[in-house]
Amino acid sequence: MTEVIFKPGRQDIIVRREFDAPPGVVFQAFTDPGLIPKWWGSRRFATTVDTMDVRRGGEWRFVARNNEDGTEYGFRGVYHDVNPGQSMVSTFEFEHGGPGYLQLVTETFEESDGRTVYTQAGLFQSIEDRDGWIPTDMAKGIRESMGMLAGRISGGAR
Amino acid sequence: MTEVIFKPGRQDIIVRREFDAPPGVVFQAFTDPGLIPKWWGSRRFATTVDTMDVRRGGEWRFVARNNEDGTEYGFRGVYHDVNPGQSMVSTFEFEHGGPGYLQLVTETFEESDGRTVYTQAGLFQSIEDRDGWIPTDMAKGIRESMGMLAGRISGGAR
Repeated sequence: MTEVIFKPGRQDIIVRREFDAPPGVVFQAFTDPGLIPKWWGSRRFATTVDTMDVRRGGEWRFVARNNEDGTEYGFRGVYHDVNPGQSMVSTFEFEHGGPGYLQLVTETFEESDGRTVYTQAGLFQSIEDRDGWIPTDMAKGIRESMGMLAGRISGGAR
Repeated sequence: MTEVIFKPGRQDIIVRREFDAPPGVVFQAFTDPGLIPKWWGSRRFATTVDTMDVRRGGEWRFVARNNEDGTEYGFRGVYHDVNPGQSMVSTFEFEHGGPGYLQLVTETFEESDGRTVYTQAGLFQSIEDRDGWIPTDMAKGIRESMGMLAGRISGGAR
């Protein structure tokens, strides 16, 4: 299942999950704008893709709408590097500011016996920023989102 | 003069310097491709601008040539955000890899009595990456570069 790791004394959150499909397929699923509304932001939010231009220098912007009260939250960033089937580096900004509003995100897709080990490192500007970004249900939301995406990938996930 | 700060237990290097010109002028100087060869990379390197498209999603790439042995080093990144006269967020990659090859850079230009307090925070993926990036003359090189830029800004610097 999905590991969510935040070690003491570090400024990042690591998310790791194995998918039962090869890296090319998993990468394709992660970068498919049509799939984003099906998994991004967990079940609490309805996410729409405003922009998603997956290439070096391309921009992305998603809007997540809280299903309970209708409040909308914008997220955006740019792609620093895109290596299809292998890795991506991008920026992540929560448009409403606050501690932890800005992250540098590194994602890798590693092949292991025909499956994929996906690792995402979200780097914050300080330990306090990282810790301020962690509401009590953060890990739960990430696990839920990863599970929703896994359900969309042929072969499922373990 | 230029402060270069790397605190224990943090993953960043902070550079701070005051320039004797308003933020609009200092920002303009920092983002002028024609000026980059005059200051970027200290006196040890001759820097050329391959790309410098200062806008959200724009790319930058510089090549620094060691004056002693002619070895060339490439650096590149993308602009996450550009607020003229105020701030910039960008990525920074040393193309030859190694620890600390990737940074998220946040720059602010703050007005103070008609002068500008420039602050640059370079964020690394780990404390080890940051420390591995610091050769003994790193701070010296940064101070030299900042001084070279200050000499190009009308009004000079203190």
